Amino acid sequence: MNSESGLATAKTEANESFNEATANHDKLLAGRARQLSAAAPAAAGTHVTSFDSGHAFPGVLPDLTAEADAALGQYRPETLQYAPRPGLAELRKWIAEYMRADGGCHLEAENVLVTNGAKHALELVCRLLLDPGDAIVVTTPTYFTAIPIFRSFGVEFIEISQDSEGLCVAQLEEVLMSRSRAGLRLPKFIYDVPDFHNPTGVTMSRGRREALIALAERSRILLVEDSPYRKVRFEGDSLPSWKALDEGNSVLSLGTFSKLLAPGMRVGWVAGSPALINRMIQLKSDGGSCPLTQRMILEFCKGGRLEGHIARVQQVYREHRDCMVAAVRRELPEAAMTVPHGGYYVWLTLPEHVDGDLLALRAQQRSVIFIPGSKFFAAAGVASRKRYIRLAYSHATPQEIDEGVKILGEVYRALD
Amino acid sequence: MNSESGLATAKTEANESFNEATANHDKLLAGRARQLSAAAPAAAGTHVTSFDSGHAFPGVLPDLTAEADAALGQYRPETLQYAPRPGLAELRKWIAEYMRADGGCHLEAENVLVTNGAKHALELVCRLLLDPGDAIVVTTPTYFTAIPIFRSFGVEFIEISQDSEGLCVAQLEEVLMSRSRAGLRLPKFIYDVPDFHNPTGVTMSRGRREALIALAERSRILLVEDSPYRKVRFEGDSLPSWKALDEGNSVLSLGTFSKLLAPGMRVGWVAGSPALINRMIQLKSDGGSCPLTQRMILEFCKGGRLEGHIARVQQVYREHRDCMVAAVRRELPEAAMTVPHGGYYVWLTLPEHVDGDLLALRAQQRSVIFIPGSKFFAAAGVASRKRYIRLAYSHATPQEIDEGVKILGEVYRALD
Repeated sequence: MNSESGLATAKTEANESFNEATANHDKLLAGRARQLSAAAPAAAGTHVTSFDSGHAFPGVLPDLTAEADAALGQYRPETLQYAPRPGLAELRKWIAEYMRADGGCHLEAENVLVTNGAKHALELVCRLLLDPGDAIVVTTPTYFTAIPIFRSFGVEFIEISQDSEGLCVAQLEEVLMSRSRAGLRLPKFIYDVPDFHNPTGVTMSRGRREALIALAERSRILLVEDSPYRKVRFEGDSLPSWKALDEGNSVLSLGTFSKLLAPGMRVGWVAGSPALINRMIQLKSDGGSCPLTQRMILEFCKGGRLEGHIARVQQVYREHRDCMVAAVRRELPEAAMTVPHGGYYVWLTLPEHVDGDLLALRAQQRSVIFIPGSKFFAAAGVASRKRYIRLAYSHATPQEIDEGVKILGEVYRALD
Repeated sequence: MNSESGLATAKTEANESFNEATANHDKLLAGRARQLSAAAPAAAGTHVTSFDSGHAFPGVLPDLTAEADAALGQYRPETLQYAPRPGLAELRKWIAEYMRADGGCHLEAENVLVTNGAKHALELVCRLLLDPGDAIVVTTPTYFTAIPIFRSFGVEFIEISQDSEGLCVAQLEEVLMSRSRAGLRLPKFIYDVPDFHNPTGVTMSRGRREALIALAERSRILLVEDSPYRKVRFEGDSLPSWKALDEGNSVLSLGTFSKLLAPGMRVGWVAGSPALINRMIQLKSDGGSCPLTQRMILEFCKGGRLEGHIARVQQVYREHRDCMVAAVRRELPEAAMTVPHGGYYVWLTLPEHVDGDLLALRAQQRSVIFIPGSKFFAAAGVASRKRYIRLAYSHATPQEIDEGVKILGEVYRALD
């Protein structure tokens, strides 16, 4: 009633398509949380198989009670007090060292701002850089959750294709030149997930990485590198991160402990030039990120547990990936897919006539949930973009993967 | 270099005055954090007495190891996973019950959104409601940290005086009428700290509360009630919160566990109509607030520890308040002050010629830090507003309060 009508509707409308997907998602998650926390196994008939979101497999969530005891005992005056706004000095230093060890990023503590997860880092990047009407570059498709964040800042999307080597840099260069000729503003930044892309699973080739960074430097456009899955690699060697190749401070790099350790810690970061980091610290008016979870992470990493844990994470998700790939080949042979070498997802391309939205709806009626591919395109409403679906293999057990994909195959064959 | 120049300078400039104060503040805090976490006592000569910020007294920070053990054991699949975006369902329910028990707010779980502290809640309120050029109402003076948050949204401040009964509602009504006659837009909301106001310590009278809510309903203007110190009451009975008096859904009420339990938990909330709460949930794109600290708080509160803890908090800060008031009367008899019945601060009015900024600078040279009153005025640069200072008695020990105020008196007398 009274003061509510007409307020800020524009801003919230921007999020409605996101909402449509996530309201349902949150509801199902709440159901799943109940299942997970209940002592008794879920009653037959209510079991939901979740291929939808990047939740961790419960079996890889580490025991952090020792880290919490240290953080809440010895470090209590730090962990229960307000934290410095840029993050705990020791954690900023640790993250800089961690990134230096990963292909030689040129970073010190002052290059790092600790955030409440990588999405918060992305939001701060947007608050720093974007004004309504600005353009940004995203891949086709792109990360589902980033779209409403960008949209809430009123941006124009420039969509660039991907192939098996990642973002098509030549196409991007052409688009930039034609915008320049047309007197249009250059994009404020280029956003991408170069390692085990979400949703496609593609990892950008070294040549493309170098070409993109050279283009960004020439064009004076910032690059926003979002790489949460970088360490979740099942085979092969890492390619240098954008940040490691970045000589001219063109890259803002987003990181997170969500996929390394646990999503519930809500600790991520953004790394970049001190000039930009300092401006983001000014914009981060939240009383500092939680010092308790920051200190627990420091205890975990400095206590030497991180490497072994990453190895375990890789092993578990490799098994899940293998199981998902085999199940899709068996139950949905009509689907084309590139087998991902890491990350949490497979991206299926179905025959042209197939409606992925309808498939998701029908599967949900049989308690198998996933996000249809149409949600991963920044420019909505293109019918040919309905033939894709993303399946997350992170959260479900191998048995659930087998059974869920079997149901998905049945639903698919019953579509016509 | 390259892409950085000229980007978003307007947005960050808005925060510069804040920054000037807080950069120094953060640096001193980092120093203090080192003092606090060091096993050895601080070396002589480096001891900083902190009257500046609303940090908790280390001696009242509770032992939360049992809560963490439960949260990380039994509840691990919940606490290390992504949380639902509105907050844990059980915590939203608990907060609604807690507010219902406090003067009978008409609230259910759906009225509550859990946030990363109250400042994050305030930022979400601003993102929901404000467009550049909008006006908002604040008191003179107002909460220091809220000013740069508001300013970053490009607002016009309408400053309304306070007296011993709180915000002058009659003056506000007059201003609204004259704006209306002049064809100016009405303010989007009225922001205030009605209990133990920060910085003045004033608690709004019941009559003013009722008059303000009636005015807001008539004028169809939202009220934003920020009441972190409500339970930190040393004597007398609570007056009804704005939310408890709110029949027409005019009030958005911000709460936090920072002053109830520990700032480091970074858990706060905003309570209001489901229509507004749901729009804020859409804007909260952070992957959910930390489920670990939410669950620890639930364990603490449902385990029956909250009441005893609040009693202890009241007792400790009452002693600190008494000590501060006595020290100011003894060492700075020239300062006028209203003795606060709760909260963390005393607000001193010095003789007209005194420059509080200079006093803060000189005191800092002797390692006593506090925030000069000029920082608490939304419209900067009015010389007559320099005669105030705010002293926080929350963090320092009684002995530090005695010694620090003694130094402050010496610095004051050496000013001319």
